[in-house]
Amino acid sequence: MNLKEKKVNSSTVYDGKIIKVEVDEVELPDGRHSKRECVRHSGGAAVLFVKGDEIALVRQFRYLYGEETYEIPAGKLNDGEDAQQAALRELEEETGYRAISSRHLLGIYPTPGYTDEIIHIYFVADAVYAGQKLDEGEFLNVQFVPVKRVLEMISEGAIKDAKTVCAVLAYQLSNNN
Amino acid sequence: MNLKEKKVNSSTVYDGKIIKVEVDEVELPDGRHSKRECVRHSGGAAVLFVKGDEIALVRQFRYLYGEETYEIPAGKLNDGEDAQQAALRELEEETGYRAISSRHLLGIYPTPGYTDEIIHIYFVADAVYAGQKLDEGEFLNVQFVPVKRVLEMISEGAIKDAKTVCAVLAYQLSNNN
Repeated sequence: MNLKEKKVNSSTVYDGKIIKVEVDEVELPDGRHSKRECVRHSGGAAVLFVKGDEIALVRQFRYLYGEETYEIPAGKLNDGEDAQQAALRELEEETGYRAISSRHLLGIYPTPGYTDEIIHIYFVADAVYAGQKLDEGEFLNVQFVPVKRVLEMISEGAIKDAKTVCAVLAYQLSNNN
Repeated sequence: MNLKEKKVNSSTVYDGKIIKVEVDEVELPDGRHSKRECVRHSGGAAVLFVKGDEIALVRQFRYLYGEETYEIPAGKLNDGEDAQQAALRELEEETGYRAISSRHLLGIYPTPGYTDEIIHIYFVADAVYAGQKLDEGEFLNVQFVPVKRVLEMISEGAIKDAKTVCAVLAYQLSNNN
């Protein structure tokens, strides 16, 4: 069965700093038309930085959830940046650590029903301290937490961020095998 | 350090079927003001259904990525529904299987920078076939794929959906321990 949906029309309903929202009219496989609400995003990049036996976690206030979260260092791609550049830039800005080497761990679709964001996650084990460089208006704390404790925090629901859960579980599974 | 951001103002820029978009003015910890782009969502619910040694995957066209994806059965919460009801309803609608028992596996924040969606993932191992009931305009195929192959698909990048990656890796890790 062909499942493809074709764009018939698109209108931009919001164009902001982080997201752009479009409502597209699409033709479904059976020829009928429907609407798709589309949050367009430049892409996300994140780093699982493991120093010895500890993972770098960023504690920050997430306005959308009204609470502080623990997440691996991450951010959005700037104009002209690729995901790896963005990931390593965010690692250095947020934690102060400059990666010596890195490898791609996973690319994830955070919530494919309404956003086109792809979050690329890199793994870093070697890095040198070069000093934290937070953006203006960026408030966060960095903590190094033992892998075992991070796994418990995921089980207990104290860590819920999807990119962090994906990265940590993938790392742990690759170590088990 | 107190990281909290306080709402000063909110304006709705889009109110759709799946999402509502608000732009809020917030007061930062240092007293300055900033904008937050907020995608409001009713919440997501998903099921990791393991039948014998196989995982139920839904293959569907995701318009935002212009491609077919493999994801565990999922959907959004309807009015008045809790996450577990929604998860089991989606499982039955999409795969035809009615759960006999289920347990909460994980709650995840798909991309906390701009959405308030929480996706609750349930684990089901016992279910009876009651017939697929797709929504009008819903086109998808269901496949049962061996756990080992699903893990390979994640490693190869053939499965990128965050809730699916989180659910499968969490399941596999709990089996390893």
